[in-house]
Amino acid sequence: MNDKAILNYETVALNERERELIILDQTKLPNEIDILHLKDIHEIWKAINTLQVRGAPAIGISAAFGLYIAAMNIDVDDDDYSTFNEKLNEAAYYLNSSRPTAVNLSWALNRMLKTAEINRHKKIDEIKELLKLEALEIKREDTETCRKIGEYGLTLIKDGDGILTHCNAGQLGTSKYGTALAPIHLGREKGMNFHVFCDETRPLLQGARLSAFELLSDGTETTLICDNMASQVMKNGWINAVFVGCDRVAANGDACNKIGTSGLSILAKHYNIPFYVFCPVSTIDMNMKTGNDIKIEQRPPEEITEMWYTRRMAPEGVKVYNPAFDVSENELITAIITENGIAYPPYSESLKRISAQNSAQKGR
Amino acid sequence: MNDKAILNYETVALNERERELIILDQTKLPNEIDILHLKDIHEIWKAINTLQVRGAPAIGISAAFGLYIAAMNIDVDDDDYSTFNEKLNEAAYYLNSSRPTAVNLSWALNRMLKTAEINRHKKIDEIKELLKLEALEIKREDTETCRKIGEYGLTLIKDGDGILTHCNAGQLGTSKYGTALAPIHLGREKGMNFHVFCDETRPLLQGARLSAFELLSDGTETTLICDNMASQVMKNGWINAVFVGCDRVAANGDACNKIGTSGLSILAKHYNIPFYVFCPVSTIDMNMKTGNDIKIEQRPPEEITEMWYTRRMAPEGVKVYNPAFDVSENELITAIITENGIAYPPYSESLKRISAQNSAQKGR
Repeated sequence: MNDKAILNYETVALNERERELIILDQTKLPNEIDILHLKDIHEIWKAINTLQVRGAPAIGISAAFGLYIAAMNIDVDDDDYSTFNEKLNEAAYYLNSSRPTAVNLSWALNRMLKTAEINRHKKIDEIKELLKLEALEIKREDTETCRKIGEYGLTLIKDGDGILTHCNAGQLGTSKYGTALAPIHLGREKGMNFHVFCDETRPLLQGARLSAFELLSDGTETTLICDNMASQVMKNGWINAVFVGCDRVAANGDACNKIGTSGLSILAKHYNIPFYVFCPVSTIDMNMKTGNDIKIEQRPPEEITEMWYTRRMAPEGVKVYNPAFDVSENELITAIITENGIAYPPYSESLKRISAQNSAQKGR
Repeated sequence: MNDKAILNYETVALNERERELIILDQTKLPNEIDILHLKDIHEIWKAINTLQVRGAPAIGISAAFGLYIAAMNIDVDDDDYSTFNEKLNEAAYYLNSSRPTAVNLSWALNRMLKTAEINRHKKIDEIKELLKLEALEIKREDTETCRKIGEYGLTLIKDGDGILTHCNAGQLGTSKYGTALAPIHLGREKGMNFHVFCDETRPLLQGARLSAFELLSDGTETTLICDNMASQVMKNGWINAVFVGCDRVAANGDACNKIGTSGLSILAKHYNIPFYVFCPVSTIDMNMKTGNDIKIEQRPPEEITEMWYTRRMAPEGVKVYNPAFDVSENELITAIITENGIAYPPYSESLKRISAQNSAQKGR
């Protein structure tokens, strides 16, 4: 089986025979397709830490596979659970330090440790086998969750629709399908076609680098825009729905997602376009009353002031819509200020007056 | 008089004694302050053509000064108007070819040629002097227009206000003050202080490179944001008004401006923030009924897909607000899609239901 078949557009895969974790290096996208074969927990730690694999579910699955690989490398007597468990916990502790704030990481590792603990009276070889099955189950469940999200999402759109998305809530952050992009990928499997517009998503360009890449990879018609062009593509009538992921949903439905998402929700309302948030139920935090309680992460200034990427930052072949201007409708403008004074609505009268004033001056 | 004193933060200046046009090279901003001394029309042509000087008014003024410098280099008998006029027209034709679509360019050159024509019976030396006065008058009028726009703008805000701006409708595109930024600069002269938030303005980053630079130059408190962060700074209550320039205003008040402006107008309305468009009266096109009649320029894909700028792209010392996420309010979300189904408003009920469903499954 070659790499491509193993991955089959999956983000994270276990090569059982070789006992290695296979991932697509996301830091190289879209310029290089570099498939990494990670053979020990040090390589896996580095892959998670340096964002070669990213997205909460994908990180959790990588860590689970990582702990299985660690277990396979623990060489103890077949009934020495105590030593085995000590070494397994060490490995889990180490893997968990790769990205301390990722909830799915510790969740997946704890689930693996619990599996070992529950089966402590079995032989070590059996426990190792059960750890493999548990890691595969974590991945299977994630794929199933995403597939269900995709199925529900498909009921909201029809073949040929134009979809606007922001950042990457796609397959690259999960085991398969993604969340906001799940209906698109699933629809493709069913022979449907959508036209997806990807916000490039400044400052880190996940939309340009990742979403555009994964959508083109499965043959989806994909157009990249700068974030500030969303209003124009909506106005053009090209967008039937906005699909975004989210990091946390408060009990009242406020949804926290990549910077720029709230702006899209306002634009969508203005243009009467449905705005859909996609997430696994685990993302809903019923203990948080409203979005106002969510503390927003502030990131380094250099992400904005210095270009972190000097190579091509979008895949070859992606279509681009790059208008230089757009039109703000009069009803949204409070006033127009000129050297002849301030024009207020209704502009058909005030602008006539303010322009006539200029002709009169010239006539003197 | 040193360069800095001559420029006095002006974009374009005539050094009468040396017969040279002095400009601040805008292609080098914000990394280098490179002041160019242009001594003939070939150097001036190149400066306009390569955007070393940009913005319709600044281009017109540069061309007028350029034609004066051309006139000074025409060496004919003091009463040979015919030869003088022929050479002057040649120079004007040449300068006009530097950026054929810029309306102010041909307008300023025609005004200069008309000045020569009206005074054809005077001595060549006198005509040259009158051309200088006309070019200075074009510049003076532009400064006056911008100053008036600034005065009107100042009546709309108060000391200490937060202002959001997009692209560069500032001093760098005019002789002085600018349009949307005129109230800020004028307010500074009067000892007022504002906090200006500059959208970086993808893809060409005029906000980061030019607006942030000119605002910092006159000591204005300036914060750079990515375009998609505007919603968040408005929500934070930091913005009292949005100030934007425009390229054309239709008779009904629809205003065409840099891509991204219409999105800001929608956000401003949502947050109940006044949205002001600044422009000289010449920008109002009463023959154009609505903004729908304006054909929007499409620009090269590479502006989005390839980073055109590999050096630092914002001035040292500018403040940055760089949140990683924002919150979309529930009333703007049509539905939340999970693997347990689709939640519609009111979310306080639907999310409780959809979350309880998950607990019930786990409990089985």
